[in-house]
Amino acid sequence: MRITPLLEAPSEPIDPAAAQMPAVISSRVRLARNLKDYPFPSWANMSQRSEILATCHEAILATPQMKECFFYTMAELSEAERQILIERHLISKELAEGQPGAAVAISKDQSFSIMINEEDHLRLQILKPGFNFRKLWKALNLMDSNLEQDIDFAFSEELGYLTACPTNLGTGIRASVMMHLPALVLAGHMEKVVKAISQMGMAVRGLYGEGSEATGSVFQISNQQTLGLPEEEIIKNITKAIHSIIAHEQNTREVLMEKDPSALYDKISRAYGLLESSFKISSTEAMNLLGLLRLAVDLKALPEEARQRIDQLFILCQPGHILTLSEKANTPEKRDTFRAAYLKEQFKKFPNLEFKI
Amino acid sequence: MRITPLLEAPSEPIDPAAAQMPAVISSRVRLARNLKDYPFPSWANMSQRSEILATCHEAILATPQMKECFFYTMAELSEAERQILIERHLISKELAEGQPGAAVAISKDQSFSIMINEEDHLRLQILKPGFNFRKLWKALNLMDSNLEQDIDFAFSEELGYLTACPTNLGTGIRASVMMHLPALVLAGHMEKVVKAISQMGMAVRGLYGEGSEATGSVFQISNQQTLGLPEEEIIKNITKAIHSIIAHEQNTREVLMEKDPSALYDKISRAYGLLESSFKISSTEAMNLLGLLRLAVDLKALPEEARQRIDQLFILCQPGHILTLSEKANTPEKRDTFRAAYLKEQFKKFPNLEFKI
Repeated sequence: MRITPLLEAPSEPIDPAAAQMPAVISSRVRLARNLKDYPFPSWANMSQRSEILATCHEAILATPQMKECFFYTMAELSEAERQILIERHLISKELAEGQPGAAVAISKDQSFSIMINEEDHLRLQILKPGFNFRKLWKALNLMDSNLEQDIDFAFSEELGYLTACPTNLGTGIRASVMMHLPALVLAGHMEKVVKAISQMGMAVRGLYGEGSEATGSVFQISNQQTLGLPEEEIIKNITKAIHSIIAHEQNTREVLMEKDPSALYDKISRAYGLLESSFKISSTEAMNLLGLLRLAVDLKALPEEARQRIDQLFILCQPGHILTLSEKANTPEKRDTFRAAYLKEQFKKFPNLEFKI
Repeated sequence: MRITPLLEAPSEPIDPAAAQMPAVISSRVRLARNLKDYPFPSWANMSQRSEILATCHEAILATPQMKECFFYTMAELSEAERQILIERHLISKELAEGQPGAAVAISKDQSFSIMINEEDHLRLQILKPGFNFRKLWKALNLMDSNLEQDIDFAFSEELGYLTACPTNLGTGIRASVMMHLPALVLAGHMEKVVKAISQMGMAVRGLYGEGSEATGSVFQISNQQTLGLPEEEIIKNITKAIHSIIAHEQNTREVLMEKDPSALYDKISRAYGLLESSFKISSTEAMNLLGLLRLAVDLKALPEEARQRIDQLFILCQPGHILTLSEKANTPEKRDTFRAAYLKEQFKKFPNLEFKI
């Protein structure tokens, strides 16, 4: 496969500080940018899209962060490879549709990815485990400045950065956090939380973005507003919202643990039992069960070292990744069987649950 | 407890031949008899019911089969004890309601039970693991004859034995088989089977008789007709029906195994995983899961020796029996927690599943 070097690249170890925040899996900041002298990708013709691609590619390679990046045009990737990049949150479904000139540059450590000819000419993204928006924003801002040395971005004094979709106008910044909220789900509080978050101008989505259903109690929280607010303000607002959700999840966990710890232990232990024993398992069920093991780490029923492995399994259980593990798993049924066998094998080496009852 | 000696009595080992019939758990034959000179229990007054009890008690103790039986009046048993006898299928819910004079005699090996002052003056029952109606009927018939030496039964030349409920008129015989039909349930064929059985003049019920929902794919099949047919004919008819259900279940298992054995293995293995890992488990869920392990024995994924233990656990997981294992399990929630811990302990010592894939 073209993307084998990317799959084999060592993944960055989780920052220990990130693990201190039980409800957060990863954070992402994204910027939308467009070239001054070209129509947005949807309106651009083939040759314009090619020129956009060439200009961006050159500018990206010129930055110190991306000198040694992975670079793929969608045209050169198979559907399976594109699926893998989606599952790793490195490209969007839209980019994967493979419009002419669609491409992605991914930094060696896979924390940066820059999509070319998606909805906008450029979508810059930084994604890291844990929750440190200020650090992410600083790194992405630097990348933006580096690119701006070579590219003239479309900018209006009145509106800020111009984007294909008006909801991204202004700073073009979108910050999102992948959160794991099992207690809020178990206690039936998610509806209330979603309502409160919306009122703060944020959106809640399932794991794979727009419209997808939440899986394994994993949600993506992101800002909605990009116009009229400076980047710093946006980052501050979403940070505040995330902290309040973390507190809410933590409180709910404490209440559940106080009321009836064995109800939580039951759910976690059954999840472990099913991961060890099933012969067929869908990716949705696998994610639900893995989510409960993540909760076990938070509750100290599994050692902290297990967290990274669980988060990896979240990704490896996705259909595209299963295909990289076994070429024969080329139908959903075969994948379910392979996934179950794979997980069973993984959990043989896993530490046992230890509840402090 | 009054019934402790009964609970501690060794249970009869399963006849190896009985284990050859995968779909059958146990068979039961019952006769309804009434004393000639007394009204049926519902119409009898207190002193009549006492006289019925005394007469029957004496006659029962005079038979060689019941010389050393367990004998309990409902009045002397606690609700918990009565519940245990129901769970062991030794008394009916009606008898347990404890009308004056209601009592039961149970043979040492617990295969015979004789209820006094239930719907009829006497309900004679024989219940054994496996499926051998002819043998059961012979043994029960002998008991009936032995009792008839001391008791004048109500009998009409035209109608046969008289019973409180006209559906039992004639021979008063009811034969039933407890069947385990997981394949028919999995394949969604039970509705069809129930219809076919009804047309053969048989009834299908869940595990605990009349109106109860089937649990763990366990069903009770019994004859409906008692009037106008000699006992031998009734036994022959139900035997034929049971053989046809066994064949149907066997065929369906073969089809399921041929089509996709891992679908069956998945269900069985998950059941084992949940029995090993849960922290709370209801009796209904426990029976469902144990039913799947019974199927594992049939498919040779568990050794034949496991069958008897599984069948015992079926009984031991019932609420009344859980209470005998732990006095503290005095609410449904506490029982669910105790049941899970008990099963987890049991399955530590259990052989592992071995599928021949």
